[in-house]
Amino acid sequence: MDYNSLSLKMHEENKGKVEVISKVKIKDRDDLSTAYTPGVAEPCRKIRDNKADVYKYTCKGNMVAVVSDGTAVLGLGDIGPEAAIPVMEGKAILFKEFGGVDAFPICLDTKDVDEIVETVKRIAPVFGGINLEDISAPRCFEIERRLKEELDIPVFHDDQHGTAIVVSAGLINALRLVGKDFDKANVVINGAGSAGISICKLLLQLGIGNVVLVDKQGALCPGQDWMNPAQADMAEITNKDRQTGNLAEIMKGKDVFIGVSAPNIVTAEMVASMAADPIVFAMANPTPEIMPEEAKKGGVRVMATGRSDYPNQINNVLVFPGIFRGALDAKATGITEEMKMAAAKAIASIVTDEELNEEYIIPGAFDDRVAKVVAKAVADEAHKLGITK
Amino acid sequence: MDYNSLSLKMHEENKGKVEVISKVKIKDRDDLSTAYTPGVAEPCRKIRDNKADVYKYTCKGNMVAVVSDGTAVLGLGDIGPEAAIPVMEGKAILFKEFGGVDAFPICLDTKDVDEIVETVKRIAPVFGGINLEDISAPRCFEIERRLKEELDIPVFHDDQHGTAIVVSAGLINALRLVGKDFDKANVVINGAGSAGISICKLLLQLGIGNVVLVDKQGALCPGQDWMNPAQADMAEITNKDRQTGNLAEIMKGKDVFIGVSAPNIVTAEMVASMAADPIVFAMANPTPEIMPEEAKKGGVRVMATGRSDYPNQINNVLVFPGIFRGALDAKATGITEEMKMAAAKAIASIVTDEELNEEYIIPGAFDDRVAKVVAKAVADEAHKLGITK
Repeated sequence: MDYNSLSLKMHEENKGKVEVISKVKIKDRDDLSTAYTPGVAEPCRKIRDNKADVYKYTCKGNMVAVVSDGTAVLGLGDIGPEAAIPVMEGKAILFKEFGGVDAFPICLDTKDVDEIVETVKRIAPVFGGINLEDISAPRCFEIERRLKEELDIPVFHDDQHGTAIVVSAGLINALRLVGKDFDKANVVINGAGSAGISICKLLLQLGIGNVVLVDKQGALCPGQDWMNPAQADMAEITNKDRQTGNLAEIMKGKDVFIGVSAPNIVTAEMVASMAADPIVFAMANPTPEIMPEEAKKGGVRVMATGRSDYPNQINNVLVFPGIFRGALDAKATGITEEMKMAAAKAIASIVTDEELNEEYIIPGAFDDRVAKVVAKAVADEAHKLGITK
Repeated sequence: MDYNSLSLKMHEENKGKVEVISKVKIKDRDDLSTAYTPGVAEPCRKIRDNKADVYKYTCKGNMVAVVSDGTAVLGLGDIGPEAAIPVMEGKAILFKEFGGVDAFPICLDTKDVDEIVETVKRIAPVFGGINLEDISAPRCFEIERRLKEELDIPVFHDDQHGTAIVVSAGLINALRLVGKDFDKANVVINGAGSAGISICKLLLQLGIGNVVLVDKQGALCPGQDWMNPAQADMAEITNKDRQTGNLAEIMKGKDVFIGVSAPNIVTAEMVASMAADPIVFAMANPTPEIMPEEAKKGGVRVMATGRSDYPNQINNVLVFPGIFRGALDAKATGITEEMKMAAAKAIASIVTDEELNEEYIIPGAFDDRVAKVVAKAVADEAHKLGITK
């Protein structure tokens, strides 16, 4: 299918994708007097007298801002806030379709970290959560950290954490399938940007055996002078054997390859050099680090990609609708590491032992159990942590 | 009807009033690939290469921000951005119901003029228009002026201009009914705040004979030392006879009284002191400057209020949906005085000579011709002015 021309046609015919409608009918004067003046003054007074009532009488409790500055959109890079709108509208409608969450695209005409933080804070009253999207590293780290500190609603950078959660879910099941222990698995992650680092952190939280992060210059290891500060921090807590070298060298003997990097940089030979039953998650989009056909030649056992036309699609849509559904349901003040781990385990749990096989380690994007199960796990965890309003 | 308790119930049961939905279906992988990745990259690329295409492929062209800082909400005053949400959601759904315009509530957690201006500018990429709402004077003047200068989309402070337009429409027809010339009519406006001044300005634009603005301390007249700068400016261009005195004194012999002030401050005697066939627009809400029953004792000929339970309701809902519908349809870069005048005349024109009578000088809120006629007049005027994109 030519999705490019289909997509242009869809967007032009519909003038975008989001629409704001009324949940109540306005057909006569009584409706008008109830939804608007004079009746509307009463919920206003209630909220004025008790700010927590904003969750009772307004859209806030189900409304998420999809916030981007358009600096790291898909594979397109810094295309500006206007050109980012189709992606943010897309995200917004997926929130609604998969999680029943109302979401609105906020595309910011600034790239300045301070300005982004203060702008999001100023528009926060009407939103129950903030989903950061397609903001380039390293700015995305500081923006998320500061917003989490300064707002009392969930803030979640989906490119980092959504990806980390769905990869973790897939890896839990892939290791289950090949009969290797999670806490002994030896993993290489190629691409030490925001997604790779975030995946690494969550795997470590979940108790993975060992991870080596690799970037263009080679393995992250204490002492390498090319590392940026975020990479240097990661080097300290990864790479137990203090390996150095390029990707091909690091992949030798590893149980798992996770790629969030560039197309066609892994060969069949490199897969063949891994430990028995190699697990390969090649998620560069649209062309993965190695195509499944090629990986097969290297003896791959479990293969996953970001693509919908191969089995085991690693797709964030399995995560963000349920994460926010659960956080909003619980009126959680944030999305913690514990909640992310609960979400990963919940997604993995959907695939039963009987169902689990090389071509089914993760539920499909349209499995409508996923958002519900994730939402429940996330909300339960928030309640357990006592971080609900 | 007890609209207060009905309204609480409506707001609680529905969790507010606005909902964000998808205009396209997402039922299978092809839908997902068209509305989201990979297909969505194509409209992104088009907009990156030609920013004007944002109107072709996104929601922008039909999306208005309803912006408030919650400082002047209904009769409630400065109740804060959270407590203002029910009103802004109400406005948003009226935009949709009456004008087919998508609108989203933006309630700002700042009262600082500079911060409000810069915040609205930063979130502007996704919006095709900005409707300012319930922002206290005099800050609202500067905010509107600066946003109009600095943005290339329509910016409209409804409390000022919406009211001015609907009052002007009503007055055109009231004077038509009593057979007095618009350019000879002698008007008193009580309440020299943002609404009163805005009404005065539009009436002057439309060629009204004479207006005297009155505030708590009396008539605005050059030399009065209590006037604020905005009032002093108005004094220069109004009050041809340089009248001084209180409201009762100024009302004597006037053709028209327009009140945007306080309840029950006009008596039957004051109405009786006006010229023949007195016209009284008493718009304080919910209790007008004089109740219709009382004005009748003073011999009022045409009586209008802001209330839905009396004839001749002066209601902004006749204005803002059509104004923005027209401005968006024309891709106008702003809403000019000419467009406001066209809107006022368009509303007035709906009432035919045959229909026009003391209890029907203005169409009802649910007259579905209004928004269409206003939109056409506004769009035509924008094209005539050459201020379209």
